Amino acid sequence: MGCFNSVVVDAPVNRVWGALRNFHDMSWAADEVECEPVGAYAGNQIGAKRIINGTFYETLVGLDDQARIMRYRIDVGTDSASKDNVQEFVGEIRAVPITEDNTTLVVWTTSWEPSTGAVAEPGDAVYQAMLSELQRSFD
Amino acid sequence: MGCFNSVVVDAPVNRVWGALRNFHDMSWAADEVECEPVGAYAGNQIGAKRIINGTFYETLVGLDDQARIMRYRIDVGTDSASKDNVQEFVGEIRAVPITEDNTTLVVWTTSWEPSTGAVAEPGDAVYQAMLSELQRSFD
Amino acid sequence: MGCFNSVVVDAPVNRVWGALRNFHDMSWAADEVECEPVGAYAGNQIGAKRIINGTFYETLVGLDDQARIMRYRIDVGTDSASKDNVQEFVGEIRAVPITEDNTTLVVWTTSWEPSTGAVAEPGDAVYQAMLSELQRSFD
Amino acid sequence: MGCFNSVVVDAPVNRVWGALRNFHDMSWAADEVECEPVGAYAGNQIGAKRIINGTFYETLVGLDDQARIMRYRIDVGTDSASKDNVQEFVGEIRAVPITEDNTTLVVWTTSWEPSTGAVAEPGDAVYQAMLSELQRSFD
Repeated sequence: MGCFNSVVVDAPVNRVWGALRNFHDMSWAADEVECEPVGAYAGNQIGAKRIINGTFYETLVGLDDQARIMRYRIDVGTDSASKDNVQEFVGEIRAVPITEDNTTLVVWTTSWEPSTGAVAEPGDAVYQAMLSELQRSFD
Repeated sequence: MGCFNSVVVDAPVNRVWGALRNFHDMSWAADEVECEPVGAYAGNQIGAKRIINGTFYETLVGLDDQARIMRYRIDVGTDSASKDNVQEFVGEIRAVPITEDNTTLVVWTTSWEPSTGAVAEPGDAVYQAMLSELQRSFD
Repeated sequence: MGCFNSVVVDAPVNRVWGALRNFHDMSWAADEVECEPVGAYAGNQIGAKRIINGTFYETLVGLDDQARIMRYRIDVGTDSASKDNVQEFVGEIRAVPITEDNTTLVVWTTSWEPSTGAVAEPGDAVYQAMLSELQRSFD
Repeated sequence: MGCFNSVVVDAPVNRVWGALRNFHDMSWAADEVECEPVGAYAGNQIGAKRIINGTFYETLVGLDDQARIMRYRIDVGTDSASKDNVQEFVGEIRAVPITEDNTTLVVWTTSWEPSTGAVAEPGDAVYQAMLSELQRSFD
């Protein structure tokens, strides 16, 4: 199962990717997300850790400055994202240049396996809200 | 060497991909391109052939309705795209959904190897013109 | 959910891919599989259909001679693969050259969504058996 | 232009990837390569730098523990890899599980653009030699 959300951001791809690529800084979605870095790794170091809104423990598993892709894993979540409901959660954020007007498509995909409990559905609305905030931050 | 061009098309991804996926029909770029199907294969059959503007002999090498990617090869070209100038030319057209407003990003990438002759540069302008026409065809 | 299985086949990649790329011919796994082509499309035409062992109705959704990847979908299955148990089943077969000795790695991945019924688990054993037969067919 | 080389390594993918993923440690190819870490970044930090055999200045541009892919760029080289001969050099090392016997395929691809000078050809032999040494290190 998974989500697929995407928005056009009105800024060149290098500026947008520059904001997205730091795993420890989600200030581009500050209205939706409190991002607390944890551990010794920097935000561009594979294995870096953060806690989102006090409940989701996430690890950076992939970062590619050439393809402009970030991949992360939720290790522990609560409520709808708890291990009873969701497993092997992986998220991916990707930035694609739009050459016609030098803007950027940002694509956020997530996938997970439902567990034996009731199936939780981290909804598109959550990702769309964060992407909309990213969009506004470049207006 | 290669080109990368992309535009936003104001239509849902399935409609846009539906127009792009037929290797034998480039009516979406009719102002720029005359596309002549040749051979016995259909436009969705791997190995299908076409001649573009009477000079480029192209073969369909990949088509994926799930990923929405078409890949093709130029076998023989003339002038700037002749074998003396360009080798191993591969083009890829990809359609990506933009969920915020149910439109579509179309990305056209090409790559080739220069030959021993003077290096030809099939320009971004050519691809951008075809993509702009695709865009207008959905207005 | 999904399976990942891979084997080394003792033949050059072009020969192995040549056997795999025809969606209507699974004679390389004849001990395990009866493959019945249906519909008007050829085995290299996107949208081609086949019935496996009388029970799985499958459609070719992607074929790429350059990347050497085939992708297909199960539309209707029975028993453990029925719609009550499994949804959005997609399989992918890929051939990768092993340059050290001019042989080939074949990778078969599958993914699906469990439905509300008891979760079926099309097992690794099934795919490994077919890949082993492919392997023997090139010995 | 580019190279494609691959070998089977007789060890599970996690052990092999564990050896490959540290950009600052090429001890698995010590007979061929002297790898000198430079700069403040760690070997798993995107942007990490190293000098190979005193002549190639390389930067880590991508690392993915899930897909098991490392991507790097040569910034400055000498002789056949100098800017006069080669541009936009990118290398990629990938580890793929072979499930039939729990071993690993390692694939090393490189690509670059020839410059205006005589075209240099960093040969397959170089990469094959390093991969063979990796292979022996797990025997």
